[in-house]
Amino acid sequence: MSDAIPPNSVGWVTPRYAQFDEPLALESGRELPGYTLAYETYGTLNAQASNAILVCHALSGNHHAAGFHADDAKKPGWWDACIGPGKPLDTNRFFVVCSNNLGGCHGSTGPISENPETGELYGADFPMVTVKDWVQTQARLADHLGIERWAAVAGGSLGGMQALQWAIDAPERIGHAIVIAAAAKLSAQNIAFNEVARQAIRSDPDFNDGRYHRAGATPRTGLMLARMLGHITYLSEAAMGEKFGRERRSEQSDYGFDYNVEFEVESYLRHQGQSFVDRFDANTYLLMTKALDYFDPAAATGGDLAAALANVRSPFLVTSFTSDWRFPPAASHEIVRALLDTNKRVNYAEIRANHGHDAFLMPVPRYLEIFSTYMQRVADEVGV
Amino acid sequence: MSDAIPPNSVGWVTPRYAQFDEPLALESGRELPGYTLAYETYGTLNAQASNAILVCHALSGNHHAAGFHADDAKKPGWWDACIGPGKPLDTNRFFVVCSNNLGGCHGSTGPISENPETGELYGADFPMVTVKDWVQTQARLADHLGIERWAAVAGGSLGGMQALQWAIDAPERIGHAIVIAAAAKLSAQNIAFNEVARQAIRSDPDFNDGRYHRAGATPRTGLMLARMLGHITYLSEAAMGEKFGRERRSEQSDYGFDYNVEFEVESYLRHQGQSFVDRFDANTYLLMTKALDYFDPAAATGGDLAAALANVRSPFLVTSFTSDWRFPPAASHEIVRALLDTNKRVNYAEIRANHGHDAFLMPVPRYLEIFSTYMQRVADEVGV
Repeated sequence: MSDAIPPNSVGWVTPRYAQFDEPLALESGRELPGYTLAYETYGTLNAQASNAILVCHALSGNHHAAGFHADDAKKPGWWDACIGPGKPLDTNRFFVVCSNNLGGCHGSTGPISENPETGELYGADFPMVTVKDWVQTQARLADHLGIERWAAVAGGSLGGMQALQWAIDAPERIGHAIVIAAAAKLSAQNIAFNEVARQAIRSDPDFNDGRYHRAGATPRTGLMLARMLGHITYLSEAAMGEKFGRERRSEQSDYGFDYNVEFEVESYLRHQGQSFVDRFDANTYLLMTKALDYFDPAAATGGDLAAALANVRSPFLVTSFTSDWRFPPAASHEIVRALLDTNKRVNYAEIRANHGHDAFLMPVPRYLEIFSTYMQRVADEVGV
Repeated sequence: MSDAIPPNSVGWVTPRYAQFDEPLALESGRELPGYTLAYETYGTLNAQASNAILVCHALSGNHHAAGFHADDAKKPGWWDACIGPGKPLDTNRFFVVCSNNLGGCHGSTGPISENPETGELYGADFPMVTVKDWVQTQARLADHLGIERWAAVAGGSLGGMQALQWAIDAPERIGHAIVIAAAAKLSAQNIAFNEVARQAIRSDPDFNDGRYHRAGATPRTGLMLARMLGHITYLSEAAMGEKFGRERRSEQSDYGFDYNVEFEVESYLRHQGQSFVDRFDANTYLLMTKALDYFDPAAATGGDLAAALANVRSPFLVTSFTSDWRFPPAASHEIVRALLDTNKRVNYAEIRANHGHDAFLMPVPRYLEIFSTYMQRVADEVGV
């Protein structure tokens, strides 16, 4: 199979695991006695450890950001468009690190991990985690890897929020913040969509107050609905229209007059929903949506985002996509305005793209070009 | 209570019921042996029966379009902003008729009616109905009321689709078509939202393949989710932001770190969802969403809407709202363009309004003004 790997791929990758035994005080007031982070790295850390880039994942992502796993040679990591030799996060220059967020369900400690206090899975007892909590765990991972300072922290969507929080919480440990298709806080509409997703999961009879592992069942229907709904918000209306239109699955011209799958878009959504439930945990989904809802760094400064950014030292690259209606350009404008208001350095690009929010995952040429140019500057600064 | 009724209200109203005993052949190929339509009327039919206006309702609406029912003096009918003395559909001039659509759940024959063939409620056995079917039943209602020709047929959203279908199917029986915040067909995104709503209902364990009446339970959770989701699409992001922002219900500054209602928008959505299930039937909801998905009058002419409109005789008033993202202005433009392409008379107004799709129900001054001016012309034509 290995000759099928494209030359600009990081190739075969294997997750690693870092164990942290010091207790972790969470923003909620709760504490975790210890935890594991699953992570992957691409490229080589240089002798000065100055070329490390932290990549942060979004709601349903994980540590597998680039390259291929041996058991799945077809589907590369989620940000493979941006990570690899010659790509914006050029692994010939940079050492790229991506960890599964605490509370996740792909190897880091989370609801499907064993609670050492009970010997049972955490399930609903896993504490809520926030973007600030993730920054804390990622800082410990940096310590573990011998990285004093990230050349950059980068992410899209919820990942971009983590990059923003890094710039606020640890200004001395981050060289650049790359905030893509993100927002400084969710809108009421964003929260509303998350709430419908949560209600779908929590009202599924198999949810069992989040202790579904005891019954050996999982709230598949609720999680499927949540994912279907999410997918609608990741795509623009135009992208959905181009991809599916009103095309029907059957060639027959008459309508079916029943509730079977009829339009292509129905088939796509059901497939997306059903395949998701095989690889994702419902409690993790709930945790991630709450972390999104709670994210609001300006809350600590009475709603003044510029004040919240006062101690930031890193320059920013902020990028949005014209057809993104989940985190629209206006949400990025808010970040850019606040950075300028407090005299920080920021480059902003609003990229014409038809894909909606998902554009941040796609090889949109202008996006890759701007991202690459910016990272060239970062490379020059750290001398790689 | 009666002195609390505003002077420009049609006042107290009572539904009526018309029974139709002739079989009705449906677009699906199925047939109903007979059916009842619940309807209301406001104003007085003149001697020539030339001043009748048919009002068509949207997905969750019914025949109660204006005025007050004796058992609910607080909440007027759904289009009270537009129907009454001095309002656009001026009941001093016009005789306004609104019926509950066939398949509905507020008095017209539908899934919660008894199936004469079995003696049991129809439930899931109620046949699917289409916009064309509704036009047919409304034409029979016109016959029943002695109305040869409507001075106008008017509606918003799915109601506007009925007005459009009337102009196509019965050009000699409609003087004007008033198509507000509608579309000539759903987009893939619209269908996608409907599909998530249907999946929520149909996967509710209490749905029982639509025969939930047998078990004495109803799929409350699924219908609640469907309504919550619908509500998000009826409001613009800006309107939700203005109404709720990130306001929280509790005065305390800390987050709850649990799944209780926390943000105002969550509270609003849960309330809307929960109150809806007390007044609406899940099978009707399913039928209405399929009627929406199927609506596509241009399908009969190979996708050429202008060709589908070739035999139209009535002038049109088409109206859209700038912040409506469910049926955006572009969807109205498609209708206007097709009418112009086939040399029909059309007035078009794109109204600046912040309310999203729901604007068509609101007393937006510019909207009422344009609607009133147009209806003045209709009144002049029929001499009232």
